[in-house]
Amino acid sequence: MSITVVGSVAFDAVETRAGRRDELLGGSATYFSVAASKFTNVNLVGVVGEDFGQEHIDFLGRYSDISGLVVARGETFRWAGRYSDDMNDRETLATHLNVFADFSPQVPDKYRTCETVFLANIDPDLQGEVLASLGPGERLVGLDTMNLWIDIKRESLITALRQVDILTINEDELRQLVNEGNVWVAGPKCLELGPAVVVCKRGEYGSILFIEDRAFVLPAFGTREVVDPTGAGDSFAGAFFGYLDQQPDWRTNEALKNAQVLGTVVASFTVEAFGVDGLVMADKTAIRSRRESLAAICDFVFDFEF
Amino acid sequence: MSITVVGSVAFDAVETRAGRRDELLGGSATYFSVAASKFTNVNLVGVVGEDFGQEHIDFLGRYSDISGLVVARGETFRWAGRYSDDMNDRETLATHLNVFADFSPQVPDKYRTCETVFLANIDPDLQGEVLASLGPGERLVGLDTMNLWIDIKRESLITALRQVDILTINEDELRQLVNEGNVWVAGPKCLELGPAVVVCKRGEYGSILFIEDRAFVLPAFGTREVVDPTGAGDSFAGAFFGYLDQQPDWRTNEALKNAQVLGTVVASFTVEAFGVDGLVMADKTAIRSRRESLAAICDFVFDFEF
Repeated sequence: MSITVVGSVAFDAVETRAGRRDELLGGSATYFSVAASKFTNVNLVGVVGEDFGQEHIDFLGRYSDISGLVVARGETFRWAGRYSDDMNDRETLATHLNVFADFSPQVPDKYRTCETVFLANIDPDLQGEVLASLGPGERLVGLDTMNLWIDIKRESLITALRQVDILTINEDELRQLVNEGNVWVAGPKCLELGPAVVVCKRGEYGSILFIEDRAFVLPAFGTREVVDPTGAGDSFAGAFFGYLDQQPDWRTNEALKNAQVLGTVVASFTVEAFGVDGLVMADKTAIRSRRESLAAICDFVFDFEF
Repeated sequence: MSITVVGSVAFDAVETRAGRRDELLGGSATYFSVAASKFTNVNLVGVVGEDFGQEHIDFLGRYSDISGLVVARGETFRWAGRYSDDMNDRETLATHLNVFADFSPQVPDKYRTCETVFLANIDPDLQGEVLASLGPGERLVGLDTMNLWIDIKRESLITALRQVDILTINEDELRQLVNEGNVWVAGPKCLELGPAVVVCKRGEYGSILFIEDRAFVLPAFGTREVVDPTGAGDSFAGAFFGYLDQQPDWRTNEALKNAQVLGTVVASFTVEAFGVDGLVMADKTAIRSRRESLAAICDFVFDFEF
């Protein structure tokens, strides 16, 4: 089994109350690949510039097949941002798309047999093109997006969503996408756009899985040392789809809820260090141990007498 | 067993995306009493003005002993507020303390045998006076507060907290109280101020129970029709302490977690209608049924293979 991810590879400059770092290896495809690689084989499709050093290429190659990583003339995508003291808000200080501005993802032929595709947060027209280029096949298709595309490429996004099985989306963006302030109404309304499952990401408040007329709500793991929240959502998605890629039938509630648990746990490692440093350290033993801690904070019995 | 609540009784004017209502019976003691009365006997200590009609006095009398309700010269406390479309923020449009400005709570002698006291959100000096006037005794003492008192009466609040078993507090106010942005650090830090338990209320995101070195996180029930969030926190507290008042030992994790479940469920009824209308309708059958729905959205198994 294998999963193909199409997304950004970037250099991030991040300021949080824990400190400041430049030149961090980041981007949605990077976080996704490292997280997913803990569960399955990953193929990466992305673009970097000539400033992307061999050590970074080697790093990505340790976690994924990088036949789909193009080195283009110019500089790598760069993003700079600053987080609020409570880490719940962030301000973008600079965005330099560089080679990412002309990104036209080409999926290598050998990736076509993959069982899962994840279209990370890029232009929905490109997401649609990737799906078209893959051709027919029984694949699990996941997609992530952001407010920018809901604002300026709504129709393209709606078209892409018709071909998607699982949408991962931030809570505010979910509300925006279906123009509905109540998330319990917004989730089911979003399912009508095409996806069989909507995963609503709520940051430090956890996530909601919407499937048919049901919802499953899981808190985030309570992390006392949040150093850098960048990449938490993509790490969640990486573990979520990485686990599902390995399941005989991803469409069961059990498989999806397990994936939600693993996404939650893996994302909690990401936020504990700058860049991918926390994520890289999380091996299966650490994931199992933290899963126990998550289970402990969620340990309620509901059928007591009163 | 019985519980004495000291707090506000008010008329509210509320605007939400669901509509607008004036002259709603409200106030922390009102919501708390109605909610707690589903589980135990309630004694109410509060003050209203001459404009507080007999029908309202009769209403409160149906849910609590109102020997401690004083009718003073002047008008009843009035509050007006408007909620944002997503119901997560509110703007206070008007506050007229009226008779509440001179509120000096007198606890009737017959309430002194109560096993539980809840000091709803009032001036911490008054909260301290109530505790002093009750005299010694093995009582469960709960307290709620707000940003105003943290701002202007911090020392009084800190003093009161030393005598408190369980603090219920909104998440933002918890962070403010201990000057710590990370809620997982703020909770344990707040325990050092005196309370054995801190219940952090997170609105639509649920609640966290902090006790010693443990935490229990419960999502809110997913309500598709939020009409008026006013009183949700006090309804939560009413059910929480009402249930604990009936337990042989409230200090067990089980009792506290069960109380958290019931607080969550009962608050979900409050927000579904203006004022106390939703809360009043919730009988034990409705509470049990919704508890099942809450259990269903929290139904995760954590020990799967991967």
